[in-house]
Amino acid sequence: MITKEREELLNELMQTLGYKFKDLELLNLAFVHRSYLNECKEAKISNERLEFLGDVILGFVVSVELYSQFSDSDEGYLTKIRSKIVCEESFSYAARTFDLGKYLLLGKGEDNFGGRDRNSILADTFEALFGALYLDGGMDIVTEIANKHFFDTVVYKINKNIFIKDYKSYLQEYFHKNSTTKIVYNLVAERGPDHNKEFDMCVNIDDKVMGYGTGKNKKQAEQNAARDALVKSGAISE
Amino acid sequence: MITKEREELLNELMQTLGYKFKDLELLNLAFVHRSYLNECKEAKISNERLEFLGDVILGFVVSVELYSQFSDSDEGYLTKIRSKIVCEESFSYAARTFDLGKYLLLGKGEDNFGGRDRNSILADTFEALFGALYLDGGMDIVTEIANKHFFDTVVYKINKNIFIKDYKSYLQEYFHKNSTTKIVYNLVAERGPDHNKEFDMCVNIDDKVMGYGTGKNKKQAEQNAARDALVKSGAISE
Repeated sequence: MITKEREELLNELMQTLGYKFKDLELLNLAFVHRSYLNECKEAKISNERLEFLGDVILGFVVSVELYSQFSDSDEGYLTKIRSKIVCEESFSYAARTFDLGKYLLLGKGEDNFGGRDRNSILADTFEALFGALYLDGGMDIVTEIANKHFFDTVVYKINKNIFIKDYKSYLQEYFHKNSTTKIVYNLVAERGPDHNKEFDMCVNIDDKVMGYGTGKNKKQAEQNAARDALVKSGAISE
Repeated sequence: MITKEREELLNELMQTLGYKFKDLELLNLAFVHRSYLNECKEAKISNERLEFLGDVILGFVVSVELYSQFSDSDEGYLTKIRSKIVCEESFSYAARTFDLGKYLLLGKGEDNFGGRDRNSILADTFEALFGALYLDGGMDIVTEIANKHFFDTVVYKINKNIFIKDYKSYLQEYFHKNSTTKIVYNLVAERGPDHNKEFDMCVNIDDKVMGYGTGKNKKQAEQNAARDALVKSGAISE
């Protein structure tokens, strides 16, 4: 039985999600940590089965998104990127954007030792929430909410460098806060025989060298120099 | 470009599947092994991106099925069972039931060295086929075909012991080919203090001991004895 007070709390979350659960017990179950079972006789099962389901659902949704975003990338690259998104770091980050810790039902011990803000518990709860969303609303709802609340606000934020295809344009955009900024690429060195050349380029922003890059052609070397400048200026992570 | 001959071959597979692809090139792509790219200039990409997608799709479909089949099992058990189903063994078995090897486009070397019947290649192709099915027909088609052609003919066959919930009933069923077979359970031993007892039971079939089992109560010990008898008589695998 869900108390009136608990219902109000869950209503708040449903408003954030933009989805109203048909089965409120299911949403509630997503927040039952196993430590809670020892303390509340009414709670018979934890959120771990929902987490089992949510884990593959998120893996699937992310894979479909990557498949279409990176239409030219091979399987190895897609797998590598997926592992950066389907992980504790981004799931716990996402959980915090929803303030999921607030809704958790924890045992007292777990709560006192900071369980409400622990990455592993938050990431598991995020998975469980997606398991519940799938069972209550089906795949369309899952995809809609993943797009609105996971890709746009989390993935593209913490993993944004993954999604930048053209670092030169991104650098242009990033530094063109005032229109007088001058971005210039210069050839630094050229090595190797004709059929296997390598180029070193640097990028100058307002006459100051901000990044270096190497490549099989000048264009590739410029992209790498732009990427280097973005990392060095803290715009993207390594 | 798909030749008339190739189209006829793929038609045959679509009939087996019970699904007609809107995009025949997509179905064809599911069979392009990377070894084929060196030999056919027209083929630019292999089936590996579809395999990336199909892998998570099958993982998802299997997880949903297990979640509903095993409504009382915990996450650990579900994960263990899933790993027995989402694996090279069952995917290659499934690929053989569709005769997928026949449709593969392989390099000559790979073909000469038996690639068409290699488990790893067949399992990957099975995944790629499900990736293509998803892109062409969506999740409903994937679920329909997985139910018809994967769960019923593969999972329940090679993993049937996973799905037996009541070994005693299954043993009864298995040995009751003639109605005179007598199945009797006997207590062999009882150990431990009252609050932590263990029971050993044996099962006799027509007065011959066929299996032993241990459990926290007699019912559990009987189930384990029945399971042991089923394994020993070759009805199920370990």
